[in-house]
Amino acid sequence: MPNSSDTVIRVPATSANLGPGYDCLGLAVDLWLTVRARLAPGDRFDYSGEGQLPDTPHNLTHQGFALACREAGREAPPVAFTVSNPIPLARGLGSSSAALVAGAVAADELLALGLGQDGVFQVCARAEGHPDNVAPAVYGGFAVAAQQDGRWHARACELPEGWRFLFAVPAVELPTVTARKAVPESFARADVISSSARTALWALAVAQGDGPLLDVATRDVLHQPYREPLLPGFAAAMEDARAAGAWGTFLSGAGPTLAAICAAETVAPVTAALEGYGTVLALDRAGGYEVSAPPAAP
Amino acid sequence: MPNSSDTVIRVPATSANLGPGYDCLGLAVDLWLTVRARLAPGDRFDYSGEGQLPDTPHNLTHQGFALACREAGREAPPVAFTVSNPIPLARGLGSSSAALVAGAVAADELLALGLGQDGVFQVCARAEGHPDNVAPAVYGGFAVAAQQDGRWHARACELPEGWRFLFAVPAVELPTVTARKAVPESFARADVISSSARTALWALAVAQGDGPLLDVATRDVLHQPYREPLLPGFAAAMEDARAAGAWGTFLSGAGPTLAAICAAETVAPVTAALEGYGTVLALDRAGGYEVSAPPAAP
Repeated sequence: MPNSSDTVIRVPATSANLGPGYDCLGLAVDLWLTVRARLAPGDRFDYSGEGQLPDTPHNLTHQGFALACREAGREAPPVAFTVSNPIPLARGLGSSSAALVAGAVAADELLALGLGQDGVFQVCARAEGHPDNVAPAVYGGFAVAAQQDGRWHARACELPEGWRFLFAVPAVELPTVTARKAVPESFARADVISSSARTALWALAVAQGDGPLLDVATRDVLHQPYREPLLPGFAAAMEDARAAGAWGTFLSGAGPTLAAICAAETVAPVTAALEGYGTVLALDRAGGYEVSAPPAAP
Repeated sequence: MPNSSDTVIRVPATSANLGPGYDCLGLAVDLWLTVRARLAPGDRFDYSGEGQLPDTPHNLTHQGFALACREAGREAPPVAFTVSNPIPLARGLGSSSAALVAGAVAADELLALGLGQDGVFQVCARAEGHPDNVAPAVYGGFAVAAQQDGRWHARACELPEGWRFLFAVPAVELPTVTARKAVPESFARADVISSSARTALWALAVAQGDGPLLDVATRDVLHQPYREPLLPGFAAAMEDARAAGAWGTFLSGAGPTLAAICAAETVAPVTAALEGYGTVLALDRAGGYEVSAPPAAP
């Protein structure tokens, strides 16, 4: 049954790759895209927040909405979105995935499509072409996703309570296309083993709440070394953050944002170490997307 | 202080690779090499159990003993080993790693070298050249190991209580050298992502006790497809075991043994599905090596 009332959807910012987990690992943090959605006489998109987006329906939230409708074999009706977005755009914090997920969830809620978490995840991971931001945006926490028989399979694990996630966000964008082109097509066996070992150590670090293990678990040989030439100051800032007490550091998604994970007690020195690289956001862990009714009109 | 009394060491059989975790994942099972060790006027090696080994000091247990002594900067004194070994030799169940570990632990105990688990692990992983059998032999359970700055780093997680480990052991050996030569030197990016995702899913399956997740987590594209031509009947037996209810199947180490993991209720049909491929051992999970005093002489 269609539900014609408003709905409010929150989708967390996410960090993907996490060092060795190229296109397969991600985590959700406590910075939320909020989208109020309602069926309307015509498409609308009212945006406020980070960056600037045109007030037209040619945006990722409308795309997510349309793709979810198509997945359910339905024609997409007009929909009005009022968006509040604190997630920096095109910096490697999952703003695109959050927008797609918000649109797909809006369709699932307003039109009672019955997609649920798995349906939303399949639709959005397919649209993105890789699942590593979408999985934590949907399931929350630390999320792993793999493809098999044409479907994506994800599993998530809550992040440990005491971990803090710091993101140094440079003022400049690094287009994902440029960043992805820098990554080789093939890898030596030793690099494959290094990565496979470390993604498993990442999962154990989360499951066992072992922050110091991130020192080994976050080291990457698949993409960061090839992207560093595009990222002035990145390697030095990673070193500085580790020296200041961060357990692990890595490029957030396709960058240019640098991520560091540390204990609450070392947030101050790690923040200081990162400030030369970009504006620092210190965030907590988060769960996956949430849906609620909007506050009653006054 | 040297401890000149006898010591008895038990080291578990292990399975490595576990599908996608080439040279980095392994697990320990409840089948134990037992070695009684004592300092003696001359080297001795009394062997009973699987296969045949010459009664000379040119064996892996004496090697592990000598390497541990060298690690501690000591000359290796003569030592007598009485060995009882139920682990099939050269079949992919970690008999070599168990023998090395037993020798290293014997040195650590008899000569009070102070190596401990980490020292024994470093010595034996270096001797083997890869850590995936040695890590679970030392730490037990599901173990992950990665190299960084010239050292091996391992982390283990206890295996879920209800899991059963079935091994179909063919009568013929597959020399590890032959099996390792079949594995390519480099891999396409998609295969790297497939493996990195699945080793992390393996860790979450263990940490969350999620047996059915092994269906996705155990699929391999790095080594099994290249080794299948050396293993008549292997692919069909894997299919049969899954059809009979196994959550996941994979080549145990470098083979030729086929491993399947299932719930206690499906041990009988999975065993039946595997019997055409080899003699089936149905084993429980195990911890790492154990040391005890021998029983008092009568």
